[in-house]
Amino acid sequence: MAESPGIARVRGVLSPVVTPFDMELRPDVRRFVRHCRWLLAQGVGLAVFGTNSEANSLCVAEKIALLENLVDAGLPPERMMPGTGCCAFPDSVELTRAAVRLGCAGVLMLPPFYYKSVPDEGLFRSYAKIIERVGDSRLRIYLYHIPPVSQVPISLALIERLLRVYPGTIAGIKDSSGDWNNTRAMLERFQPRGFNVFAGNEHFLLDTMKLGGAGCISALANVNGGAIARLYREWKSIDAQQQQAALDDVRSAFAKFPMIPALKAAIAHFGDDPAWTTVRPPLVALTTEQCAALMNVTPANFEIAAT
Amino acid sequence: MAESPGIARVRGVLSPVVTPFDMELRPDVRRFVRHCRWLLAQGVGLAVFGTNSEANSLCVAEKIALLENLVDAGLPPERMMPGTGCCAFPDSVELTRAAVRLGCAGVLMLPPFYYKSVPDEGLFRSYAKIIERVGDSRLRIYLYHIPPVSQVPISLALIERLLRVYPGTIAGIKDSSGDWNNTRAMLERFQPRGFNVFAGNEHFLLDTMKLGGAGCISALANVNGGAIARLYREWKSIDAQQQQAALDDVRSAFAKFPMIPALKAAIAHFGDDPAWTTVRPPLVALTTEQCAALMNVTPANFEIAAT
Repeated sequence: MAESPGIARVRGVLSPVVTPFDMELRPDVRRFVRHCRWLLAQGVGLAVFGTNSEANSLCVAEKIALLENLVDAGLPPERMMPGTGCCAFPDSVELTRAAVRLGCAGVLMLPPFYYKSVPDEGLFRSYAKIIERVGDSRLRIYLYHIPPVSQVPISLALIERLLRVYPGTIAGIKDSSGDWNNTRAMLERFQPRGFNVFAGNEHFLLDTMKLGGAGCISALANVNGGAIARLYREWKSIDAQQQQAALDDVRSAFAKFPMIPALKAAIAHFGDDPAWTTVRPPLVALTTEQCAALMNVTPANFEIAAT
Repeated sequence: MAESPGIARVRGVLSPVVTPFDMELRPDVRRFVRHCRWLLAQGVGLAVFGTNSEANSLCVAEKIALLENLVDAGLPPERMMPGTGCCAFPDSVELTRAAVRLGCAGVLMLPPFYYKSVPDEGLFRSYAKIIERVGDSRLRIYLYHIPPVSQVPISLALIERLLRVYPGTIAGIKDSSGDWNNTRAMLERFQPRGFNVFAGNEHFLLDTMKLGGAGCISALANVNGGAIARLYREWKSIDAQQQQAALDDVRSAFAKFPMIPALKAAIAHFGDDPAWTTVRPPLVALTTEQCAALMNVTPANFEIAAT
């Protein structure tokens, strides 16, 4: 499977798009499409079905339906990198096939995450099995390294092997380890070979760009995407460090609360749309007091651009 | 939803039944039914789709099809406790509904396990949502506490609350914490109220029975079920401690290897049926050398009863 020359590697700032639910906890298509459209207008790409999307609280059929709805609404699949890695490879294959069929630029793929302490050999076979079963030269996989949540790390040795065997398909990584030394090692070792390294949040965006990285995939882009995308464009500018500090201030405010409920609370608040606060279990929405506290601690100049 | 008087709580020894796969990694129905039938003949109940069943490497449709095959083959659903807890509650609801429809004695339910450090409130809502959506008074849920793998513990406070709100439905627990103090606390606090506490493996079987527990759900029952079921029946006998020691010897031999591949290697060896060694990624089968070493370290008198 040689690389299809027509498919560019994804770069820039992407958001793991938060997923709105209705009162019955069904995905709310109308609000989802609207939020995605707004993110694109801010210069932010759509890493739908990420950790912060509550993707692992959605079943495969729900995710495929949402993706089809986005494309049907006219949103550009070349700006989409849906998360497609599930515990069971038949699920990962089904979801990945749908993403490729719909023309998505790539997929962000968790390793199977139930079984712990599995050997690299098993993780290699898992990715290999999915690549072979999808069997489409348009497939571009961005690996998803998030050991604090998945508890299943993707080692440098595993990346090396996957890149050697599937050079056209293995396209990059999101490093959500929170460990800058790990991100730097990936940047130094793999980015020069066209493997796009994304910081797992915007806190490492400037440092990532300085080492030639591809951008970041950041939960905060759901609420602060315009400013994050600006630093991506202007990282060489004289006020880049100031821009980074301003992004970090917003992040610090949200980090005082459970992240996903806090993001949804902010969207509900600034969009005057309380339905956005709904989360699926096992998550719990912020209390009214927590919402007020969140708004209190966000920097004075922070406001989501009008939706 | 009051308890249906006709449904007895499950007791005894159950096996998280290992799942055989064919060369294409499809579930192998014929071998699965045969192994289940053999387990029943050993006095072992069928906790199909447990951790050691590679259940989280199977998609929902595969699990429902396997369960239907077992019932169609004439195996008694009143001896079945399928695992039905998935990350996404729509999956858990679908699988649990199928188990209830097929007449299973109960289901063994993991909490949603992707998101970590979630509050008890969120886990409560997760179980509540599933119970309400299944909406069937025949449903019996055995909670599945396995923090070393799921990384999402089920606290005593959560059990207390679930028992209070759903006394007819919350039927017991499998404690795979490996922490005897925790099992003892559950036995002392909840077993007297008809909440059946199962040890997570046979190493704690005798101690569990002495404190009035319900039995154990044990990976080793796949290969040593007859002896484990015997200790369950004879735990008051004079040689119970000796029986326990003999079970522990077999366990120690298997614990030197990755458990699931080792169980399958043993079934392949004693049944002279090499196809049994196949596992799904991210697991990896034992090497020939590991298989030989496993057979070397198992106690001299250990042999799986003829299948």
